[in-house]
Order: sequence, then structure tokens, then C-alpha cells
Amino acid sequence: MYQGAVQELIDELGRLPGIGPKSAQRIAFHILDADPEDMKRLADAIRIVKDKVKFCKICFNVTEQETCNICQDPRRDETIICVVEESKDIVTIERTRSFRGRYHVLGGAINPIGGVGPEQLHIRELITRLGDEKIQEIIIATDPNLEGEATATYLARMLKSIGIKVTRLASGLPVGGDLEYADDVTLGRAFEGRRSLVG
Amino acid sequence: MYQGAVQELIDELGRLPGIGPKSAQRIAFHILDADPEDMKRLADAIRIVKDKVKFCKICFNVTEQETCNICQDPRRDETIICVVEESKDIVTIERTRSFRGRYHVLGGAINPIGGVGPEQLHIRELITRLGDEKIQEIIIATDPNLEGEATATYLARMLKSIGIKVTRLASGLPVGGDLEYADDVTLGRAFEGRRSLVG
Repeated sequence: MYQGAVQELIDELGRLPGIGPKSAQRIAFHILDADPEDMKRLADAIRIVKDKVKFCKICFNVTEQETCNICQDPRRDETIICVVEESKDIVTIERTRSFRGRYHVLGGAINPIGGVGPEQLHIRELITRLGDEKIQEIIIATDPNLEGEATATYLARMLKSIGIKVTRLASGLPVGGDLEYADDVTLGRAFEGRRSLVG
Repeated sequence: MYQGAVQELIDELGRLPGIGPKSAQRIAFHILDADPEDMKRLADAIRIVKDKVKFCKICFNVTEQETCNICQDPRRDETIICVVEESKDIVTIERTRSFRGRYHVLGGAINPIGGVGPEQLHIRELITRLGDEKIQEIIIATDPNLEGEATATYLARMLKSIGIKVTRLASGLPVGGDLEYADDVTLGRAFEGRRSLVG
């Protein structure tokens, strides 16, 4: 145990995700040794994010205004919505430049063990958008894991009853990967989703 | 890339040791979602550490006063100094309760590639202590790696010429470990440092 302020900092750092006690200690000592100006910038960045950053009124993406850049952009296709779990997924998808529609951030995935049910996610707001906006297709881009799949299944069932086109991102072999290292489930999906090359 | 404040926070977090771009992003989104009071405490902890924590005038351990708890404690043996690289090594050694003397923090180890020479470490201050205090033994507890060994060798040579008893922590097999998994160098050291059990 350290004295007062150092231990306090180690405790606070240790509450961040992916930071164990050893990393917290290492970062705390880095902060101790670092340039005071740099560390003031770090503390300010935390404060400013909490003060200024909000969630888009339409899609729940992070933004410093009422609505996010993407929802404000008239060049984006407003007939198609890509549903993601988190704001950071939007950045990942935007980087690929394969999608020019709009987004909807659920704020997580259905996880009964973790106590996250559909009512904790921004699903009701998605339904409201379907009434207000002229949407023709919903692409479900939740993570290809247990929770993401459960969420996709839940959404697909609900949206089908409304009568809207619902698609899911393809699962299969990663491009540039090696067949030998593919796991069984992924390889199974790659077979299921196989595409015709000729004709 | 994110907008303004979020990207700024990701950048600042990414400058911390052991935090890559993915972790920085993950922590930034955690900060966004977290309770504002908790995040205020984190920002304050950083600020307070930079404002209040100093280095002990005698041994360079971290402290919120002029001298650290250990240097102030009259029950500590003042004839023996344990030389460590960093303040955090003191915490590790204190936890074992195997040492009741005082410490001296070098502030790193000699590392020619990283541009750290003896003059960047608190070696001069250690020599001054040898003149002022009634020290009989110096235990060198730098890390058992390349830089730590180089520092130990440098210190041992210098201190021997002054005519003081210099010792080094034993290297050998970790207790509770398995001979099979010991690396060659450690096993070699264990042989060199073998101790007589009978007689």
C-alpha cells in the first residue's frame, strides 16, 4: 500500500476496464514522473468529455451537439439504418467506407446473465424512427458473438412482424486468413453462406 | 477518428504506458458512460497526485511531506540501505517484511541505449548519504535484468573503492516454482549460489 494520494490514484485507475492492479501502479508512477502540463491535459480531457459529450438524440452516437455528424449529413442515405451495439462500432464501419446510410446505437447487447434485456437497449427509439423516417432496410451489425447473435435474432423477429427488410452482416472466413486456423463455427458459417461464382 | 473531445481523450490515454489505441478507445468509452462523480474523482486524483506528491529529500521515495515515512521512522535500522530502481520496488520489498533498514531510490537503471547513464540516476546523492549517515551495508536490489545488473556492477565497483560492504539480492529458483520451467540463466545462478545444508 502507498500513502494517500498515490494510493487513491492507483485505486481510481484500477477501476477502469482492462487495467489490473499492476498496470494501475505502473500508470500512477508514470503520472508521478510525467510533465505536469501533460497530466493537466489528461485530467482536463476526462473532465471535458464528461461535460461536453452527449448522445445523439436520433441515433445515440456520441456527439458534442444535439445530433451527430452523420445524422446531420444530408448526403447520407436515409432509407437504410445500420444497427450497432456501441458508438465505437460506427467508427470501425466508417473506416471501411462500405456503408453510406445512417446508424442506430443500441447501447449494448441482450445479455440475460449480465442483466441486460431488450428494455435496457435503445430498441424502442429504433421502432419510433421506423415510424418517422422513410426507412427501407435495417442492417443488423451487432457483434458475431453469443450476445450479439441473440440481439440480432430478437430484432429480426420484431422487425419482420413490422414488415421491414432486415439483413445481417455476413459471417465467414476473414479475408487474408488461413483456412487451417478458422474455428469450426466460422467455417460452418462460411459453408452455409457460400456464394455462387459462375452463372 | 472520433470528434473533438472524445478523440482528445483517446489521444491522452494512449500516451500512458501499456495503453494501446484499442485500450485507449475502450477506456474513453467507459469514461463516457460512467457516473460523472466517479470520473470527477479520477480527474481529481490525477491533479492531486501532481500537486501534492513529491520525492523524499533523503531517499527519493514518493511522499507528501519533505521526507518519506520510512526515513522519518526512528525504528528503522539506519546502518543499512537497500538501493532500488523505483519507489514501487519499496512497496514490493516492504510487503515481504524481510527488511527493516532504509532505502535509496535511483530513479531507474543504467541503460546506454535508452540514454540513461549513471549521472541521470540519484547516485551522487547516495554517495552524499554515505558521508553523512552511519551506514555499514548497502544491499543492491536493482532488477535482475540487463540494465539492473549493469547498474549493480557499476555501484558495486564504485562503493567498493569507498570501502563499504556491498551485497546483492540472491538470484536463483523461485520458491514454489518447478525446476523444469526454470530458464538456463536462472538455473545457472542457482548452481553458482548454492548453499550448504549440512555442517
